[in-house]
Amino acid sequence: MKWTESLISTLREDPKEAETISHKLMLKAGLIMKVASGIYNFLPLGWKVVLKIVNIIREEMNKAGAQEVLMPILSPAELWQETGRWSFYGKEMFRVKDRQDKDFALGPTHEEVITDMVRKYVNSYRQLPQILYQIQVKFRDEIRPRFGIMRAREFIMKDAYSFDKDEENAKKSYQRMFDTYNKIFSRIGFKFRAVEADTGAIGGTSSAEFMVLADTGEETIVYCPNCDYAANVEKAEGKIEKKGGNAGEKLEKIHTPEIRTVEELANFLKLKPEDTAKTILYMADGGMIAVMMRGDREINEIKLKNAIKANELRLATAEEIVNKTKAPVGFAGPVNLKEKGIKLYIDNSVAEMETMVCGGNEKDYHYSGVKRGRDFKEDKIIDVIKIQKGDFCPKCGKELSEQKGIEVGHVFYLGDKYSKAMNATFLDEKGKSKVFVMGCYGIGVTRIAAAAIEQNYDENGIIWPVSIAPFEVVIIPVNMKYKEGTDFAFKLYEDLKEKNIDVIIDDRDVSPGVKFKDSDLIGFPIRVVIGEKNFKNGKVEVKLRKEKQAEVVEKEKVIDKIIEGLKG
Amino acid sequence: MKWTESLISTLREDPKEAETISHKLMLKAGLIMKVASGIYNFLPLGWKVVLKIVNIIREEMNKAGAQEVLMPILSPAELWQETGRWSFYGKEMFRVKDRQDKDFALGPTHEEVITDMVRKYVNSYRQLPQILYQIQVKFRDEIRPRFGIMRAREFIMKDAYSFDKDEENAKKSYQRMFDTYNKIFSRIGFKFRAVEADTGAIGGTSSAEFMVLADTGEETIVYCPNCDYAANVEKAEGKIEKKGGNAGEKLEKIHTPEIRTVEELANFLKLKPEDTAKTILYMADGGMIAVMMRGDREINEIKLKNAIKANELRLATAEEIVNKTKAPVGFAGPVNLKEKGIKLYIDNSVAEMETMVCGGNEKDYHYSGVKRGRDFKEDKIIDVIKIQKGDFCPKCGKELSEQKGIEVGHVFYLGDKYSKAMNATFLDEKGKSKVFVMGCYGIGVTRIAAAAIEQNYDENGIIWPVSIAPFEVVIIPVNMKYKEGTDFAFKLYEDLKEKNIDVIIDDRDVSPGVKFKDSDLIGFPIRVVIGEKNFKNGKVEVKLRKEKQAEVVEKEKVIDKIIEGLKG
Repeated sequence: MKWTESLISTLREDPKEAETISHKLMLKAGLIMKVASGIYNFLPLGWKVVLKIVNIIREEMNKAGAQEVLMPILSPAELWQETGRWSFYGKEMFRVKDRQDKDFALGPTHEEVITDMVRKYVNSYRQLPQILYQIQVKFRDEIRPRFGIMRAREFIMKDAYSFDKDEENAKKSYQRMFDTYNKIFSRIGFKFRAVEADTGAIGGTSSAEFMVLADTGEETIVYCPNCDYAANVEKAEGKIEKKGGNAGEKLEKIHTPEIRTVEELANFLKLKPEDTAKTILYMADGGMIAVMMRGDREINEIKLKNAIKANELRLATAEEIVNKTKAPVGFAGPVNLKEKGIKLYIDNSVAEMETMVCGGNEKDYHYSGVKRGRDFKEDKIIDVIKIQKGDFCPKCGKELSEQKGIEVGHVFYLGDKYSKAMNATFLDEKGKSKVFVMGCYGIGVTRIAAAAIEQNYDENGIIWPVSIAPFEVVIIPVNMKYKEGTDFAFKLYEDLKEKNIDVIIDDRDVSPGVKFKDSDLIGFPIRVVIGEKNFKNGKVEVKLRKEKQAEVVEKEKVIDKIIEGLKG
Repeated sequence: MKWTESLISTLREDPKEAETISHKLMLKAGLIMKVASGIYNFLPLGWKVVLKIVNIIREEMNKAGAQEVLMPILSPAELWQETGRWSFYGKEMFRVKDRQDKDFALGPTHEEVITDMVRKYVNSYRQLPQILYQIQVKFRDEIRPRFGIMRAREFIMKDAYSFDKDEENAKKSYQRMFDTYNKIFSRIGFKFRAVEADTGAIGGTSSAEFMVLADTGEETIVYCPNCDYAANVEKAEGKIEKKGGNAGEKLEKIHTPEIRTVEELANFLKLKPEDTAKTILYMADGGMIAVMMRGDREINEIKLKNAIKANELRLATAEEIVNKTKAPVGFAGPVNLKEKGIKLYIDNSVAEMETMVCGGNEKDYHYSGVKRGRDFKEDKIIDVIKIQKGDFCPKCGKELSEQKGIEVGHVFYLGDKYSKAMNATFLDEKGKSKVFVMGCYGIGVTRIAAAAIEQNYDENGIIWPVSIAPFEVVIIPVNMKYKEGTDFAFKLYEDLKEKNIDVIIDDRDVSPGVKFKDSDLIGFPIRVVIGEKNFKNGKVEVKLRKEKQAEVVEKEKVIDKIIEGLKG
């Protein structure tokens, strides 16, 4: 492509609304344009990146034997009602009525629609396994769309669904997709990690997230440098150091006026935070529960929700707390809690404490010397602490580390959650009706473009991996009026095109400074500069975007040099 | 692909809901599945067809220098309000509110969004021309979705938009797209015709439709076998034979009880239908108008709407007619019409008549011997007759013919309709601000699949053009237990894949009859049958789907034969 015939429009200033590196650079380099909050146009350069991502995904999915389909964006409410997700999804789902007043969702995901397809077309074990996928626009009405296309309201996903006759085969399909995802993200050139993940609204029994590693990532990964354990912090298990738990042997009620935080409480009593236990009150599916953990640690609400199998979980309000416990917020504790009809869950860390300081269920009072079994009885011991760097690996026991990541893929083992709800069955070898065993597998196609930037940039702009660069090579004739130079540049442009190298020539009549700046900003992997001085010596300059130094090469050798550079 | 690993599911019975050939065959062959009225899943085979269509379009658009983008499906109401189409579009547009109660359309077309993009990123004549396109899902809430994906509510279109600095260049862009469309439809292998068309809701001054010729088409094309004139009947001009127009010299009021049709009237008066003129009453933008044409011909309301430049046009109701003319429906006539405050338009055909029979504006009365100028005066002479086979070409005067077609593409010269409304400007050579001159260009991507079937089928099923067939070749080992035969079949399968031939092997353990029936129904262009008897003689059978006869060839020559067959 010639630059003068392209719609490329870079910005000189940093766009004000941009909150992250990739958001800023995508706007500045003219890859995307905001249409409405969380809704974007892909401009030609940005869309080329997405198409390259799509191609890689499609090739690898097809190689894995998956078959591509397309399901509609408008999906009828009746299907969502079969699984109960029409009400479960809430405001995050865009909903439309047609002219006959029928309800549709703008598909945020397609489990219901694909299960409906398969229950219609697959009726024998002979037709299994099936892995079906689509690359389609998806919709989520996020409360706070942000970071450009990273968390948009309209975006492109590759979503795949596997159907098997039993668990054993379903696990094979899951593994096949897991391996395919590794291939896809490797081909793109990502530094990434597959981590254990929570299953969230999709459900199912196990799942893994593929995380692109980047300091700017929204997600926290806990991993073990010693073994292969890695998990999203939302899901991470692990052992924490046994500390403290010595708050005297005798139960004593202590007046603690104006004490608000765990630290203040520990100081006041000349104890350590790990000698205290905090009790938090939640509303779980409508009823109040109390959860205790060691005073120096934070709770992981996702682990809590899963541990107690709650559909809806939220902190109790001040009003609810006063009504139920007669004490204001901040003084909840386990002693005499049962009498108030509140179920008590305690974390492993609390189970290990000898004695502890707890809230007194009365304004400005705490108990010290509280002993489990003697002074309170829990309903259940669970694991709800947020795991962090320095805790111990649940697999090998060594110390855990942390890093930041961006989720670009997610694989779920679903089991029969959807097939059972939708009565999706086939006949097995013995002629018996069975429900399909399913998996589902998502990749955030447009998000990959943003994640690639978060992982690859410098102060001048984007540094695209060759695999998904909008153009692989940019040719810059420094001075358009220097005929020998531009002739060579155009000849090189044609030669590269012939070799199927994706090349753009910057044939604008602007200063070299502008050309260099734009080329760095957009981030083409290889830049070839044809300047008068070098060219008179039979030479041109080749620079890899990811390297600091340019190289001056014989003009006859430039194509070899480019091919070498593209191989990475 | 192996058949046993594919989701292919053909139906034995004709689906009851199918109204057309392509609808029936797409359901029966398992290409699409209905999700809701006018909303479909594309199953693997059907989606493969669409992807091949997409590839052809993309390649040809890129060759023409057009650049691909992607615009969102959710397009904000504010953009549509700038051009007034938010209210103009009516119920055909799906509308959604987000959680902040903001209005969005599900894009039925993207003139507003692209114009918004270009007014932001293009500000100099140096950046022109620009042709931008996308391949995207579109939505129209049709009153009566029908014919499967032919008239769906959710479908895929390729829509392109050109932006130029002046009319001359805009016409070049229009021609470039016109030529590209010819290439695209030729590459697919269509018998098609570009015809003059009405501009409808998109607006603009001139447009052409690309029609796939098929007897089952919904559209009627009027064309001249002598010159290149061809037009959609909605738009077609032409001269009609001068006939009749002799209904006596003296104006006479005649009692015509129980006479209802033009034929009855002519018979009763011993005249011909072409001696009569009918007068139809319409409401045009709120006011009543009368339109006269020769009694034996039909009106073309689209031509009428354009001729009188009406935004809204409909037949007057019985009540409106009685109120205004004091006569019941069916007796309108031009004599004394002016006094009733009704504007009178007459067709060319009426202007040519000497005298005529007309309605008497009174129940059961007509006038004969009505003379234009003497007995009534028209406000304007216009062209509103529906042109038909046997009329005369407006270009060369020879007799016109008719054929049926399916619209698959449409090119519009828009001028400044959108750029002016949206104040989309650039600076010209003299630094003066000017509005862009635009064109827009659509292709019904999913509709092409249906149109290809309407043009290519027989009693056994679909006959795909090679260019867009779901697989190019099917290999059928007649008996899976005959090892030599299946070994050869699988070897051939691998060899063809290596040659990038898109092949499927029917490795099911079912009867040959089922395999043949399915292969004919789905319509793979080439079928290779490996049967025991032939194979023992070193031969296999090759059959082109479009031919009646199979050919028995040496097994060593089968690949050459296939390659030859694929070339057509």
